[in-house]
Order: sequence, then C-alpha cells, then structure tokens
Amino acid sequence: MPPRIVLCDPIVYEDEGKAVLEGVAEVLQLDPSVDRDEFIRALRPGGRLEGVVGLYERNQSTGRIGHFDRDLISRLPRSVKWIAHVGVGYDKVDVAACKEHGIGVSNAPGALDETTATTALFLLISALRGFSAAEQSLRAGNWKNPHSAANAHDLTGRTLAILGLGGIGLRLAELVHAFPMRVLYHNRRKVANAPEWCEYYDKEHLDDMLAQSDVLSVHVPFTEETRNIVDERMIRKLKKGAVIINTARGQVVDEEAIMQALKDGHLSAVGLDVFHNEPNIDPRWYRFPNAVLLPHVGGSTAEAVRTMELCALQNLRDFVLTGKGRDLVAELR
Amino acid sequence: MPPRIVLCDPIVYEDEGKAVLEGVAEVLQLDPSVDRDEFIRALRPGGRLEGVVGLYERNQSTGRIGHFDRDLISRLPRSVKWIAHVGVGYDKVDVAACKEHGIGVSNAPGALDETTATTALFLLISALRGFSAAEQSLRAGNWKNPHSAANAHDLTGRTLAILGLGGIGLRLAELVHAFPMRVLYHNRRKVANAPEWCEYYDKEHLDDMLAQSDVLSVHVPFTEETRNIVDERMIRKLKKGAVIINTARGQVVDEEAIMQALKDGHLSAVGLDVFHNEPNIDPRWYRFPNAVLLPHVGGSTAEAVRTMELCALQNLRDFVLTGKGRDLVAELR
Repeated sequence: MPPRIVLCDPIVYEDEGKAVLEGVAEVLQLDPSVDRDEFIRALRPGGRLEGVVGLYERNQSTGRIGHFDRDLISRLPRSVKWIAHVGVGYDKVDVAACKEHGIGVSNAPGALDETTATTALFLLISALRGFSAAEQSLRAGNWKNPHSAANAHDLTGRTLAILGLGGIGLRLAELVHAFPMRVLYHNRRKVANAPEWCEYYDKEHLDDMLAQSDVLSVHVPFTEETRNIVDERMIRKLKKGAVIINTARGQVVDEEAIMQALKDGHLSAVGLDVFHNEPNIDPRWYRFPNAVLLPHVGGSTAEAVRTMELCALQNLRDFVLTGKGRDLVAELR
Repeated sequence: MPPRIVLCDPIVYEDEGKAVLEGVAEVLQLDPSVDRDEFIRALRPGGRLEGVVGLYERNQSTGRIGHFDRDLISRLPRSVKWIAHVGVGYDKVDVAACKEHGIGVSNAPGALDETTATTALFLLISALRGFSAAEQSLRAGNWKNPHSAANAHDLTGRTLAILGLGGIGLRLAELVHAFPMRVLYHNRRKVANAPEWCEYYDKEHLDDMLAQSDVLSVHVPFTEETRNIVDERMIRKLKKGAVIINTARGQVVDEEAIMQALKDGHLSAVGLDVFHNEPNIDPRWYRFPNAVLLPHVGGSTAEAVRTMELCALQNLRDFVLTGKGRDLVAELR
C-alpha cells in the first residue's frame, strides 16, 4: 500500500500538481466542511485518513480545522511525519511542537517574492499618490475632492528603506529601481547578492537609515524576535511625513503607534495588507483616509498559488521517497 | 510699462516660479471667484487685467471661467497673444479659434510622463490583482470575500500593448519591463528611440497585436482622429479576459462598448482615470466590481504640477522676450 497524503483545502490541485505524487503516494482530499475534531477522528485507526504520513496545509484552512497549533499537533497520530505548508510565512504552524513530535515542516520559500513585492509596490504608489482616498471620493460621488496634488508625490527620486532584504524585499528593490527610487536596507547581515545600489545599514546605523527614508517597507518574517519590531521609537526616527508599508505580518508593527503617528501627522500615509487579529481588524483603520488597506491578498495570484502548491507537493514527494523535504524550515535544520 | 501676464488659478506659484518672469513681465493673479464675464470685463480697457498679453491657464480653472473654447477666445481682447496651457493634453483649448485670432498656444510636453505612467502602472496592477475590489470588500466588512486567487494575476510574463508610444507610453514600457512584461506597441510611426524589446505593430498588423495582449493601455492625445479609437471592434480583437487601462482621455474609448465587454466577460477588468463627461461620470461604472476608478488624478503630484507650471512660465517668458514660446503646440507650428 503506498503512503497516504492528505491535502487540506487545495486551491489549484490540477494536472501538473497531480503528476508530482503519481505512483508515489495515495492522495486524499479533505472535505472542506470537516472541523478539527472530525479531522483528528478521520486520521485515527478506522478513519478515512488512517495511516496518513504527510499533510499539505495552508493558512486559509483555519476556518475548518484551525491552525496547526500545539493542541492540534499533539493530537495528530504518530503516522504523520511531514507537514508541507503551502505558503512562505509559517508562523501559524507550531514548529516547536512539531519538533517535539518528530514532524518535519516545509514551506515554499521564494514562491511569493514576485507577487508580494508587487503588492508592496502597489501600496507604495497608492500611499504616495493618495489613490485609495481618491477612488473612495469618486465612488462616494465627490469626484476628486479632497484630493490635492500638493499632497501627492512621485516615487522617482524618493528614498525607500527596506527592513529585511530577503527574496521579497530584494524583488521590491528591483521594481522601484525602475523609477528609480534610492534604496536603503537593514538586515541582520549584509546581503551578498544585493545589487550595489542597495545601501546596507547595520544595526548601529539603523536610525541613520530611518532619518533619510520617505518610505519604510517591512519584509521580515514574524517571530518572537520581530514582534512589534516597527515600534514607536522606530516610527519616530523616520522623517516627518514618511510612509510605512506592511505586507509581512500585522504583528511585526505596533498598530497603536502607527495610528498615533498618522493622527499627529508624523506619518503621511500607510499601506497595509496585514493586520493584528485578521480577519477581525481594528475598525479604527477605516477612519484614516490616508490608510490604504488590503485584506491580506499580497501573495494571492493564480501563479503564486500554483507555485506554492507545486512546491508543497514536491516536498511531500521528496519526503515519501527520501524521508526529507527539500524546504525543511530553518528551525528544524 | 512691462508686459502683463495673468495667472489663472496657479497651484504652486512659488519662489522658483516667480523668478522666471521677474524683471520680464508684470504678473497678475486671477481672483479664484471670478467668472467668465467678470474675467472678460477685467481684461478690457479700464479693467484690472487691461493690456494682458499672456495667459497661464489650466483645465481645473473650468469651474470659474470655464474652458478656453471658441466663445471665450473670441471675446478675449486683441492684446492677448499667448496662452500657456499648464498641462500636456490641451483638448480643452480651442486651438483652431486661437489660430484665427493670432493667439499662440503652448503646452507642457513631457511634464507628466513619469506621473501618468505611474498611474497607468497602478491601474494595471490593481486591475490584474483585483486590489480595488479587495479594498472595497475589506472596507465593507467582508474581509477578502469574494476575492479569489484564481482570478488574480502577476504582471510578470504577461503581454502589454501600448496604444501611442509617446513619452508616457514609453515610460510605462520602462516601468513594466522591470517585471518584465512583454511590451508591444502601435503608433502612427515606429518610434526611433524605443528600446528594441518594444515590439512595433503597424496599422496593418494592429489586430495581430491585440490578439496577443493581456492588457491594452491607451496613451494617445484626444483629437477628432482618436475619438473612440478603442471601439467595439478593437475591444473584440483583444484576448478574452483582457484588461484595458485608460489614463489618456475618456473620449478616446467607447465607454458603452467597454461596459458591454465587462458584462459579458470578454474583458476581465478595466482601470480608468478618465471618463466621458467628467466630473459627472456615468454612474453605471460604480456597479462593475472589476472596474478600478480614479477621478482624473493621473498627472496629479506636487512634482508634476511644479514641472508643468515652470514650463508654462518659461513659455510665457520666451513669448515676452522673443515673441514665441518653445512649446508651441503642433497645430500652430
């Protein structure tokens, strides 16, 4: 009997994806109405998913079986040895608990670079130009009122600071270089493959970077280390009238501090794709006309989902064939 | 007595702008509450603007003195010999009437290339990714519902057709080349300074261009020749599911044909900064969730306004000193 794999809520599982596990594993799909308890029952002896060794999981399955937190992971049968996360950020999977239970976790590094960097560029343009507010005025029947050219700005010649120059930050740097914007970045280490026009600022010179920046775009993963990394202190080091873009995770910025800075004019605008407590975001956000707000769709394109899905399936294939997926997350290496 | 110049509704007339006409002309500013009749009266002998030889005019002054149409131009005193239009498109100034009255007209060519191309890029991203609809869902309290990744697309690898490769079209080509998108264009003539990766399609091969394009972006000036140039026939030659972007003028597209194509799914989305009958746009636009709508703010940044204004002032200076502005419009050359 071939090893069994279960796909929780695949989106575009199609011909090419199907081919990845063909002849390698028996692929089962989860009924989308299944909840956490039913899921665990199905995995147990006699259940429909009995003997499953690998799971394919994405954040959006939350609604049905919930996050892969310590509780869920501790209840998984011992047959389960691999969780392939269909995404880049895997902060919703309790990797420490997986480690204790001997479960490997893979993500899909790089799969969202293009898609998320494009989202950051979109938010950056919208925030600097006042486009979100302008579209809202139009749709409210007020044409361009109260848009003012004096408060709208070109990207060209402005300075962008990138916090975290991984794949997404680097891709954003390339996209804004077309204008060009000047690009500064802070990262734990200088990035070897960054173009020479990306100017590195180490931890000691972080304030110096912030003081020169018209826009700060955040591209760090969410960990306990990066929680609220963009805090009151960092915000106040930015130029007056600066803009903050967040396409990473809501928890890496201090929302209260950002709201206060928008209110007192220290920040002129923000562009946010991610929030604390999604999808129940703080309703005060709606009241800031200079806040561009997207519902965490930064990595959401057919092409990105397909790339993530193929990556997850490939990790499951590798796990079945070799005992290890190629994209084992850093904490388990 | 130095020649007199009147500025109708300047926005950022400041130090640098003031220096342009200093010692060359007496600069008068129009009271923003003045209407058409009062304006004409002020220009006549004994009026506050008596003897004015040059006018600085922008589309936004419409509300007070109205457009520089045949009626207004025929009523200008014979002292007026130059109209410096603070903008790129000068379709609101009746150039034929100016010619008959011996009035020169200048515009500000190139001043909006950067700003308008950025707007077209913004509309293109929003339309392909479904961001406008996503922001509306969020603000309506529906989080990302009904956004679907399956209907959202990356720019990279898609094909953009540019109709009219002037300064704005060319700048858009450069910006999307960063992804890259494939760039095709149609223009009356092949553009000598276009990069080699911009593929030219002449009139005979226009349909061939359209059939390959995921996005059509319109960058032609509005003239009787270009009225409704994007018509039913052209729209139907595009791929099914294509996107149309218009940052030029509302009148260069057939709005009815676009609405019909959105309804029947031939077009998947549109991004429009310009409309027929602005600012009283057709309210049916609001009902298309896949229409990204901006209130003609495509060229509206502090930097662009400043560039246009300096250009208009420089043309007035040249006119006063040499009898001719450097940016005399094509019809009068």
